[in-house]
Amino acid sequence: MTGTARKALAEAIATFLFVLAIIAAVNSESPLTPLAIGFTLAVLVFSTGHISGAHLNPAVSVGVFLRGGLTVTDFIAYLVAQFVGGALAALTSFAVWPAGAEAKVVEIGPAFFVEALFTLILVWVVLNTATSKDTDGNSFYGLAIGGTVFVGAATVGSISGGGFNPAVALGLSVGGYFDWASLWLYIVAPVTGAVIAALLFRVLNSDDAKKIGA
Amino acid sequence: MTGTARKALAEAIATFLFVLAIIAAVNSESPLTPLAIGFTLAVLVFSTGHISGAHLNPAVSVGVFLRGGLTVTDFIAYLVAQFVGGALAALTSFAVWPAGAEAKVVEIGPAFFVEALFTLILVWVVLNTATSKDTDGNSFYGLAIGGTVFVGAATVGSISGGGFNPAVALGLSVGGYFDWASLWLYIVAPVTGAVIAALLFRVLNSDDAKKIGA
Amino acid sequence: MTGTARKALAEAIATFLFVLAIIAAVNSESPLTPLAIGFTLAVLVFSTGHISGAHLNPAVSVGVFLRGGLTVTDFIAYLVAQFVGGALAALTSFAVWPAGAEAKVVEIGPAFFVEALFTLILVWVVLNTATSKDTDGNSFYGLAIGGTVFVGAATVGSISGGGFNPAVALGLSVGGYFDWASLWLYIVAPVTGAVIAALLFRVLNSDDAKKIGA
Amino acid sequence: MTGTARKALAEAIATFLFVLAIIAAVNSESPLTPLAIGFTLAVLVFSTGHISGAHLNPAVSVGVFLRGGLTVTDFIAYLVAQFVGGALAALTSFAVWPAGAEAKVVEIGPAFFVEALFTLILVWVVLNTATSKDTDGNSFYGLAIGGTVFVGAATVGSISGGGFNPAVALGLSVGGYFDWASLWLYIVAPVTGAVIAALLFRVLNSDDAKKIGA
Repeated sequence: MTGTARKALAEAIATFLFVLAIIAAVNSESPLTPLAIGFTLAVLVFSTGHISGAHLNPAVSVGVFLRGGLTVTDFIAYLVAQFVGGALAALTSFAVWPAGAEAKVVEIGPAFFVEALFTLILVWVVLNTATSKDTDGNSFYGLAIGGTVFVGAATVGSISGGGFNPAVALGLSVGGYFDWASLWLYIVAPVTGAVIAALLFRVLNSDDAKKIGA
Repeated sequence: MTGTARKALAEAIATFLFVLAIIAAVNSESPLTPLAIGFTLAVLVFSTGHISGAHLNPAVSVGVFLRGGLTVTDFIAYLVAQFVGGALAALTSFAVWPAGAEAKVVEIGPAFFVEALFTLILVWVVLNTATSKDTDGNSFYGLAIGGTVFVGAATVGSISGGGFNPAVALGLSVGGYFDWASLWLYIVAPVTGAVIAALLFRVLNSDDAKKIGA
Repeated sequence: MTGTARKALAEAIATFLFVLAIIAAVNSESPLTPLAIGFTLAVLVFSTGHISGAHLNPAVSVGVFLRGGLTVTDFIAYLVAQFVGGALAALTSFAVWPAGAEAKVVEIGPAFFVEALFTLILVWVVLNTATSKDTDGNSFYGLAIGGTVFVGAATVGSISGGGFNPAVALGLSVGGYFDWASLWLYIVAPVTGAVIAALLFRVLNSDDAKKIGA
Repeated sequence: MTGTARKALAEAIATFLFVLAIIAAVNSESPLTPLAIGFTLAVLVFSTGHISGAHLNPAVSVGVFLRGGLTVTDFIAYLVAQFVGGALAALTSFAVWPAGAEAKVVEIGPAFFVEALFTLILVWVVLNTATSKDTDGNSFYGLAIGGTVFVGAATVGSISGGGFNPAVALGLSVGGYFDWASLWLYIVAPVTGAVIAALLFRVLNSDDAKKIGA
């Protein structure tokens, strides 16, 4: 298997595994849950990055697209794969964990702010550690990317539920952990953060920016 | 010492140390126990990987064999070494820790599911970070592999006991922590996950697959 | 954008994000707060290091300057950018978190000692992992630098509040978490540690020292 | 400064900082104390390794010497530097922390076993990640070495106090945390583990062994 199909399949599988592990982590009620979520992303990025870049997150794909690192075709395929993977993970989780009884209710202002803020940091980290020519060949990208989600989950998870990722948010809505009425927020806020991060990347790395969607 | 004997001895020693540290971790009742178990694997993989690949896990050896990364002779030697190392560790542990008083009783369906799921992730991570030509020479393989076991132990340890490894399961059965009646599950479920991971690896990395057992 | 302006903008943005995440972490009251603070620095250093070196800390810039790794112009621009970023972060945080109700009251002697000690370690780590010719091209500098701040926050945070960084201290004073009457301590103690670390670096790496401010 | 004096000074400074941070960590009573101790070693190894190898531990120096990686002169200088650094750190700690009120009382058998076991793992990790030709140039040695001490402290710290290092044990005895009557154990058990690890390294890496003390 090669090309877009191979990359989209990798995105779907890894997003599926990511969301399933998040649901396992949430149900474990372990004090280490935020660290487990961050490490899950880290190990999936380290293992799947060489195939698809391991975005596992539509907001990250938006950022990489705006930075000039994805074609239009791949961009669309990645989004579909991520949402399908996230939703299927939630359906699969019912085999072990019953649907979340109480969906997280958020206060819109603070939740929007922290979702946008931590997705901004996440996409800034992805663009600079996984797509920059200056850091090419490094061995830290997965830890940096997963570490960012650990920080977000640990510090603002109680405010927004800790999405930072529309595909995760879709999965957690299907699973009963997030409120369907807030799904727009888990899409708009992360994408807002991703757009700002991509703009900052292009301004600060003007010698490394590429034509979008080419 | 060279060849298969050297590699099998390394597998036996490192699996012995791994299982002994797991028993120490379980007995510590520390809130950091899952992280300690994950880090134990990480440091043993980083230190022993250059000798034998540091599988320390029959399910991993199954995955590497199916991916075309082990000869038949080495495969058999690895399995024997891992089971011997794990069992000896449990016997040795009695010098400090009495036998576990209550073996973990599991519900078969959920336990099978999570053992297969996290071994699938584990073998996916091993194949892509420690045997792929695309990630050759990286400095993260140990952290990625150990980090995966940390995630499994933290998130589903309460469901299955957290084996993801038939040699560890044998050791924990000898030690009195796992129920002998469940040993089949701790072998069949991880191997199932490993087979799926190896198939996914071969499909997604068809240019990197090798003849099995050659 | 190029040159000093680009680097100073990167320092301002990353210090802004660092201080905002610290305030989020403090308000989360998570048991993982010190680890979250350390990882925040790690991911910002990994992502922003290739642009400005990612000091995000006037004491680090003092150390790098004395080691001969910053021009006078860049040094001054970095300090301004870091203090502006830190103060703006605190003002921004009021959108989500009210001002800290009780500023940390410290005992001067122990607080000065631990602030100087951990900034000494921090600057020693920065100079040796991010500016030394012997460790050029490594993939661990961000983890080493962030890990140091994790250790400081976890072990002596209850003594001094855990600054180790005058720009962070300014932000936490604006935010109401640190006492304005102690701000001098959070500047003088870290700079003292930084100067000692830079001297040690120059003595122990005399073949790698450069003319200061050149 | 060059040669043995430079390396011994680096060992003394870094061991001093290590023991001071351990005493801070112990006094913090943080649930993250074992992780903070492990990370302290990790950051000191990453930063000081390029100067002296960053043993910071007489048992490690014994292992490196037996593996053929230290001259007799350097070996002796390292031991003196480490013990002086550890003892001075304890004396310095009295400036902030009063002497430990209750020295850890250990049961000799289990304490000897776990001190020997985890020092064996530690020296195995050091020899394979920091002195082996096969892993030359890696970026994980500090994390592997510090991670091993984290595991030991988290899992068997309650049994032996968690030394794994005669210089640390001297410092903790001076500080009042370890019982002087047990100091022999904290020297003999780690050295026993180190000798076994060095022998295993030489057997398994016969093509990489060197003449001792040359």
